[in-house]
Amino acid sequence: MTAFSNTRTVRIEWGDCDPAGIIFYPRYFEIFDASTAALFERALGITKFEMFKTLEFSGWPLVRTQARFLKPTRFGDDVTVETSVKFGRASFDIEHKLSLKGELCAECSEKRVWTLRDAGGQLKSHPVPNEVLAKFR
Amino acid sequence: MTAFSNTRTVRIEWGDCDPAGIIFYPRYFEIFDASTAALFERALGITKFEMFKTLEFSGWPLVRTQARFLKPTRFGDDVTVETSVKFGRASFDIEHKLSLKGELCAECSEKRVWTLRDAGGQLKSHPVPNEVLAKFR
Amino acid sequence: MTAFSNTRTVRIEWGDCDPAGIIFYPRYFEIFDASTAALFERALGITKFEMFKTLEFSGWPLVRTQARFLKPTRFGDDVTVETSVKFGRASFDIEHKLSLKGELCAECSEKRVWTLRDAGGQLKSHPVPNEVLAKFR
Amino acid sequence: MTAFSNTRTVRIEWGDCDPAGIIFYPRYFEIFDASTAALFERALGITKFEMFKTLEFSGWPLVRTQARFLKPTRFGDDVTVETSVKFGRASFDIEHKLSLKGELCAECSEKRVWTLRDAGGQLKSHPVPNEVLAKFR
Repeated sequence: MTAFSNTRTVRIEWGDCDPAGIIFYPRYFEIFDASTAALFERALGITKFEMFKTLEFSGWPLVRTQARFLKPTRFGDDVTVETSVKFGRASFDIEHKLSLKGELCAECSEKRVWTLRDAGGQLKSHPVPNEVLAKFR
Repeated sequence: MTAFSNTRTVRIEWGDCDPAGIIFYPRYFEIFDASTAALFERALGITKFEMFKTLEFSGWPLVRTQARFLKPTRFGDDVTVETSVKFGRASFDIEHKLSLKGELCAECSEKRVWTLRDAGGQLKSHPVPNEVLAKFR
Repeated sequence: MTAFSNTRTVRIEWGDCDPAGIIFYPRYFEIFDASTAALFERALGITKFEMFKTLEFSGWPLVRTQARFLKPTRFGDDVTVETSVKFGRASFDIEHKLSLKGELCAECSEKRVWTLRDAGGQLKSHPVPNEVLAKFR
Repeated sequence: MTAFSNTRTVRIEWGDCDPAGIIFYPRYFEIFDASTAALFERALGITKFEMFKTLEFSGWPLVRTQARFLKPTRFGDDVTVETSVKFGRASFDIEHKLSLKGELCAECSEKRVWTLRDAGGQLKSHPVPNEVLAKFR
């Protein structure tokens, strides 16, 4: 088990918001998915695109997710997303905390599986490569 | 506490899918949000747009959600979403079950709050109106 | 040159709309892209997913598009999209007309290229197969 | 008539891309819409959210748009969007040029109308306020 975190800033855009004037919550999951990719990019020094090219890696499909929404955010808000990971053998757990001006607005946990395509092209779970784990230590 | 359900069919589109060729999971939350609206439309006989005009209603913000993803779906799939609700006093719980050809692919629960804008324009929780509850019986 | 058209109904959803309460226009392009796929599905009797499996086909990337927005639409609106096509040799032109209750709200034209992946995996333009053209006559 | 431009960098995300592995083009329009807002924010020194609070402004609905797609972009690409504006009386024309490593990948023009809500809440075109024009000089 290892822990590691990354923080990034995201602008909430007009097009992310709904007729109530606040963010439409599926947009949060787009932000969280990109934040998971950003965490790995920070640790590995390569983008997800490059991970497909250079690692034993065919994606990290989501098994389950859970989110709480505490305060709405609005277009023009620059929110902070702090993302951390704990690794299992062939899966990992992600936590996202999304804040505005230091106040927690939403939090989300994800369980994802590390996968590799088998000979038939099907995605199969696969141990997280040691060279990946090493970068998170 | 009351229970009530609605079933609808949704086409997964090319633009809902990611480079792995399967649905990008935030699109599921868009589908679920529309399925919640469809459930109320079925029970009340009016669209969400009309609910704003004719009911004590200013939206049903999400407090928390939880989802499990069992099998991926792909563009061209016509999935079935079965949505049910249980009412509390000023909140309600939604369950979505998304299936393809009878096989469960994803399930999601939501807790939402019934709201009304106060004099200052702020969203405040408000008891679900009796005229709404009556339609779900 | 052949002409052929398809009409479908699309519900504008809450999540398609912005803080002005009207559709966020990039959602129209999602609707138009799905309408192009629906046109081919109607003519060929197979989904785009099946087209990849059974035809000389690797996608129809957009070269250019142009749209006019005449009247806004809102969540709860069931709009009608009429889509027609004219074929060139390795490209085709699409026209979409989106109406609400008989009134034109938006129109869009697209130029797309029929493609096939070459040995190196690159998308190359390719004549629209005769078996496809035949279905549009 | 005045001209003014802003340049920003946008990361293309996994969730912006389709099963062909390249950006799904409606995402470009989301990027362009946010780039128009960024241009005004740069000139005025306030966000679009603040514009609604402090200016004679109720939005800038799109009248028409036109785009050409020259080269695809992919997840992990950091693209540059250069946005410029020319003002008419109650409308303005926007040009976006989206490049990757100095190569033009997409370009888009927009015609938008400056609006204000009338007494009945309807959006009406309205001359671009002088205090806005002054900031673009």
